[in-house]
Amino acid sequence: MESSLQMQSTLDESGKLTLALAEVEVPTPQDHEVVIRIEAAPINPSDLGVLFGPADISSATTEGEGTQSVLAAPVHPQFLPRFKGRIGQALTVGNEGAGVVVAAGKNPEAQALLGKTVGVSGGAMYAQHRAVPAIMCLPVAEGTPARDAASCFVNPMTALSMLETMRLEGHTALVHTAAASNLGQMLNKICQADGVDLINIVRKPEQVDILKGLGAKYIINSSDDDFVAQLTDAIHETGATLAFDATGGGDLASQILLAMEQAQLRTPSDYSIYGSTVHKQVYLYGSLDMSPTVLNRAYGMSWGVSGWLLPNFLGKVGMEKVIELRTRVAKELNTTFASHYTRELSFAEMLSADIAQQYNAKLTGEKYLLCPQKDL
Amino acid sequence: MESSLQMQSTLDESGKLTLALAEVEVPTPQDHEVVIRIEAAPINPSDLGVLFGPADISSATTEGEGTQSVLAAPVHPQFLPRFKGRIGQALTVGNEGAGVVVAAGKNPEAQALLGKTVGVSGGAMYAQHRAVPAIMCLPVAEGTPARDAASCFVNPMTALSMLETMRLEGHTALVHTAAASNLGQMLNKICQADGVDLINIVRKPEQVDILKGLGAKYIINSSDDDFVAQLTDAIHETGATLAFDATGGGDLASQILLAMEQAQLRTPSDYSIYGSTVHKQVYLYGSLDMSPTVLNRAYGMSWGVSGWLLPNFLGKVGMEKVIELRTRVAKELNTTFASHYTRELSFAEMLSADIAQQYNAKLTGEKYLLCPQKDL
Repeated sequence: MESSLQMQSTLDESGKLTLALAEVEVPTPQDHEVVIRIEAAPINPSDLGVLFGPADISSATTEGEGTQSVLAAPVHPQFLPRFKGRIGQALTVGNEGAGVVVAAGKNPEAQALLGKTVGVSGGAMYAQHRAVPAIMCLPVAEGTPARDAASCFVNPMTALSMLETMRLEGHTALVHTAAASNLGQMLNKICQADGVDLINIVRKPEQVDILKGLGAKYIINSSDDDFVAQLTDAIHETGATLAFDATGGGDLASQILLAMEQAQLRTPSDYSIYGSTVHKQVYLYGSLDMSPTVLNRAYGMSWGVSGWLLPNFLGKVGMEKVIELRTRVAKELNTTFASHYTRELSFAEMLSADIAQQYNAKLTGEKYLLCPQKDL
Repeated sequence: MESSLQMQSTLDESGKLTLALAEVEVPTPQDHEVVIRIEAAPINPSDLGVLFGPADISSATTEGEGTQSVLAAPVHPQFLPRFKGRIGQALTVGNEGAGVVVAAGKNPEAQALLGKTVGVSGGAMYAQHRAVPAIMCLPVAEGTPARDAASCFVNPMTALSMLETMRLEGHTALVHTAAASNLGQMLNKICQADGVDLINIVRKPEQVDILKGLGAKYIINSSDDDFVAQLTDAIHETGATLAFDATGGGDLASQILLAMEQAQLRTPSDYSIYGSTVHKQVYLYGSLDMSPTVLNRAYGMSWGVSGWLLPNFLGKVGMEKVIELRTRVAKELNTTFASHYTRELSFAEMLSADIAQQYNAKLTGEKYLLCPQKDL
């Protein structure tokens, strides 16, 4: 047996979370599968939940060296009940990645990929090798380095799916929070290309600058005193009745709904205690703020707040739409959907407590890349 | 001109809410309309929002006598901004009522109703006369007193529409809060007739008794220490993934979603930090608790919380479905949809501060009826 390293995150009953490498067998592909030697896998905000759960990474420590490194961090007892489902389970990590196909099943679509560089999603990408169905792979143009294909799924497909959701549900413009993120930057490019008005909500002046540099028209800083008034103006101008919120907690979703309602009420009509009849929707697709969502309901009865998850959405719209979106990603991989990385990490570096504290900080504009073959 | 009394609620800029009678002209029907002499109109929880808004009714006073009575109550300044849309507007009140058709437009469907007793909804029913399109009227069997037709719309159509929503959205069982209400009692009768499992959430032992008397199978007291555990058991047994919540504020909706998620997780499957993939929905259709809705999101990503309003739902499903539901109401008016009233009030009694405090208390099992022709 040839062995391969795979990163695993485990929460134990005492509330200790450990992140370490396990030696597993290099998988043998089934007929419809290929085995990818993973060269690059980004650390996305959506990976941090599996990597660290509710652990306090500021108290993390690392013991051992190289591929024997074990990172440990404590979870506050108050969070444990909510995470009892993962206690004792070694979870694999890494939503997406890219690498070279080193083995293939006998089906023609698998054989066709042998030797090719492909981008792929499906979990467990923080590993040296990963077997996946050939149909899940996005082959990239010859000569494209794996790092350029590593982020071809999560952010591009999320951004495109936000626009698809907008169209499917009959909205015509969008509000987006944490808008200077890698995802938010892509969304600006797509919305500009497609002629869709996008209202960007950020928290800091430097984030305003990032989006200005991309030519964004509507950028609102939620730290401004007149945030809701500014937002109401922008919503009135664009007609946005749909928002995607990455923060989840606190009252941001409620403030967005309030601004949407106030914008509706600027068009004179009969007063109703039930508010406007236009449906206003906020989808929470992240949880940067772990505190409860607080809704003051000062916006009538035509509103909704829901969780939103990319795989669920893709499952709902079906394979034909998924292929349509993936085709667009492949075509615009080096333009619209290009990702830039702050730093490339080896397995050992990723398990260092110091470095973990950096990539766990979810800094806008920072993006780390794991390179599972580095320094081995 | 023949004059007619109409109840109006007005909030002024200083934060004083007044409820009084205005003399208006008896309406002349258009071709497609009839004029109803209103004999009975229930005071539903859904009327209290228009009647009193956020006013402190425990501090209400009444000046004047008889039809000259004026009830006044203060609104706390912190609530005023949220209600600025109604400041200075004399709002008519009364979602539904019943009476005798005393004038009709020339269209045949209007003429056919002359002299008939009809139930009707559409607002402004706390009045001596009301003109409405003939098609909105539900004629009742000859000899049926108006009081028996007065509640033929809001609660019956809401209860039936909850079941329709369940079917339309692919759920198979229901959770209902404030479940011992007049509406909740109807919902129990319909669910039993239609073979749909209904989980009743109440707050007091005497409400448990009311529902037991109706043969309800699942009754859970939210004041019990093990409320969420009991609810999880019932949801696991019934498979309910849809709830209608009348309270709106606080963490009840969040507790229901948590119980739904915990019930899903009892069926073994791969652990996912994103929770189960079954969509769990809570509709807030009332606001008995005016405090913010607090969602702790400890139930994955497949959930939604939304406002729900009967007219919006009926507008969505279309006239054919509305007629189907109304036909069922007419057929079961004296059985499934029978309402019982604690007390019949004249206009003057309804404007008495003492009595207002009673019907504003939203007591389960208490239902007041305004009789606009009484004592005049």
